Amino acid sequence: MRAVLVGAGLTKVEEHWDKGLTELMAEASLQALDSAGVSTVDAVYVSNAFGQVLQEQSNIGAYLAEELGIRGVSASRFEAGGASGLAAVIAAVAAVSSGLYKSVLVVGGEKMSEATSEDFVSLLTTEESAESVAALGVTQLAEAALLYKEYLKRNRLEHEDVAYFSVLGHEHSQTAPHAQYQFRITLDNVVNSPVVADPIRRLETTAPADGAAAVLIASRETALKTDGYRAVVSGVGAATDYLSPFDREDPLWLSSLSLASQRALELAGRKVSELDFLEVHDSYSLLAPLSLEAIGAAEAGEPCHLARKGWWTLSGEMPVNTFGGLKGRGNPVGASGLYALVESYLQLTGRAGKNQVDGAKVGMVSSMAGLGSLAAAVVVEAWV
Amino acid sequence: MRAVLVGAGLTKVEEHWDKGLTELMAEASLQALDSAGVSTVDAVYVSNAFGQVLQEQSNIGAYLAEELGIRGVSASRFEAGGASGLAAVIAAVAAVSSGLYKSVLVVGGEKMSEATSEDFVSLLTTEESAESVAALGVTQLAEAALLYKEYLKRNRLEHEDVAYFSVLGHEHSQTAPHAQYQFRITLDNVVNSPVVADPIRRLETTAPADGAAAVLIASRETALKTDGYRAVVSGVGAATDYLSPFDREDPLWLSSLSLASQRALELAGRKVSELDFLEVHDSYSLLAPLSLEAIGAAEAGEPCHLARKGWWTLSGEMPVNTFGGLKGRGNPVGASGLYALVESYLQLTGRAGKNQVDGAKVGMVSSMAGLGSLAAAVVVEAWV
Repeated sequence: MRAVLVGAGLTKVEEHWDKGLTELMAEASLQALDSAGVSTVDAVYVSNAFGQVLQEQSNIGAYLAEELGIRGVSASRFEAGGASGLAAVIAAVAAVSSGLYKSVLVVGGEKMSEATSEDFVSLLTTEESAESVAALGVTQLAEAALLYKEYLKRNRLEHEDVAYFSVLGHEHSQTAPHAQYQFRITLDNVVNSPVVADPIRRLETTAPADGAAAVLIASRETALKTDGYRAVVSGVGAATDYLSPFDREDPLWLSSLSLASQRALELAGRKVSELDFLEVHDSYSLLAPLSLEAIGAAEAGEPCHLARKGWWTLSGEMPVNTFGGLKGRGNPVGASGLYALVESYLQLTGRAGKNQVDGAKVGMVSSMAGLGSLAAAVVVEAWV
Repeated sequence: MRAVLVGAGLTKVEEHWDKGLTELMAEASLQALDSAGVSTVDAVYVSNAFGQVLQEQSNIGAYLAEELGIRGVSASRFEAGGASGLAAVIAAVAAVSSGLYKSVLVVGGEKMSEATSEDFVSLLTTEESAESVAALGVTQLAEAALLYKEYLKRNRLEHEDVAYFSVLGHEHSQTAPHAQYQFRITLDNVVNSPVVADPIRRLETTAPADGAAAVLIASRETALKTDGYRAVVSGVGAATDYLSPFDREDPLWLSSLSLASQRALELAGRKVSELDFLEVHDSYSLLAPLSLEAIGAAEAGEPCHLARKGWWTLSGEMPVNTFGGLKGRGNPVGASGLYALVESYLQLTGRAGKNQVDGAKVGMVSSMAGLGSLAAAVVVEAWV
């Protein structure tokens, strides 16, 4: 259960009006292949959340392989909402570890700019139970708002305490060349931005985004034959939970992420305290502190207090979302997990530029579908 | 790269107006778990082609796990058109072989009855390139019709020679309890049924269908702890090709299936001649002879001549589509590969009833997306 990252690629997250979904994914994929100095792979795993609805494109694994000129490979698409990217990565790591494939190109892509904000809310709600929740008109956004209120009340926190995580994202994304939002925002900006579902403000959610990110995953033996930078995937884990937080024993406890991260850390033989940085899924600002609690990086409510001490910044005790996370870098849903993995690979190979975490040797990437119905985690380490 | 089938389940293929997609999949899944005498698994892999469009349901892996009452497991959805089912199976076999999971529930489901025939043609066409072919209005059906004409001309065959494969499907499905069409049809019925795209007749294609099929895949060690019947997955393979047959060197040569089956047979250490039965993807009648050629069971045009000698029947030299294939048993797209695998498992464990192939020890299941843009093959063997 060990695999090696030997190449990566990504496009800027923005509204790519001039490029199609497959074109974006091909661009990231070719960068990944080039960076490893290889021209083909055994398999192409695509992660994409909404292309069947937005682009009316099924079977995109085969389509992308054709675009890349590497026909004859194995291919498939993975879909698990916001966890699609890491679901594909976990399957690729297993395929390489089992000996089935020597190398797998995992590429996540999403093109949402054609979608209106209303479409976006509807699409995200299809991650919940369409037969019940979605049909009743309860959006994922509305559920997130209820959680937010409960979180503030239970932990005696102010709106600004949670809203801070949006500020943190932009703090890191302002120097991230591939980020959707390369500027600072203040707490005032966030809490004064329009209400989208009280208490959630516009700047506490993500916007529709286009982008693609790719990694090349190889067996150790194959990795030694490649040219580029290397990092190790030492642990993976995934877990489900009830789709609706309100069916869970405690709506504020992300048990899926807790289980997924425990499994990944256990396989890697690592503890949370050994991590040099952490990528968490902040599609709503509230999910950042909830994730930090589930992973075991802080106690209930504590992420907000530690934030005031600069704990989660690039130079803090535990840097979080080093290129801005979903809020700052952007959230092309099916690609988000891959972006975080590529960013971690840059950290571990000392190529994170102005966003470099000094001496980064071990990190963890986490993602989730919806409000934690499915979570996945991947531990990555520097090649030694 | 060996894994064990330890349980299976399936629903009848029909129009299930009274059941939702998740409900159908839960039914097949629970059968699979029960038959192995286990109550949970490490992962749930769902294969489904069109649920995001037809049921507006994303993230169905997590949703199904919740329905099954086995939260906390890993989950993901696989989508690769008609090859979705075997794509999920291959990933599950790799996950079990790598040691990541001890057991994986792979369940395919599709619910198409709400779709009109026109919807069905459009959906299948999203398996082709939506950005070019589909947008131009060239359906997959139209491409299949062009191939059909070319096949008849090149091999100097009559329409009835190819249409026979629909008759063969119904010959086998008439005694298949879970089949959509449990009745005989004649060559006259087929060639006199309405033209859907000349020369393809209505009875040479499949109809919208609902259904779900599941298998439980375990490591050898875990398999020994289960109660039920066992069979071995000894080889897997997958490969892509150009999406449009007319971009290929020879539009009548399914190179994806040729590669996929070679890979699966090689891993299994088997030859085509050692197979006791074969499941091929006959979403159009023409794809049956084309598949038999690509797999190496017959030379170009020969499948039609051998058919006249009874070669492909249950008591023939090489039984094909032993429960009726996509035409006779039915084609719930994302579930089709799983149905064929469950049927093979029944063959290898001597439980195929009136459809039993005498002394079946080794078989191969094959599936494809579209007209061979992606093909997958799985070799299965009796437990010894």
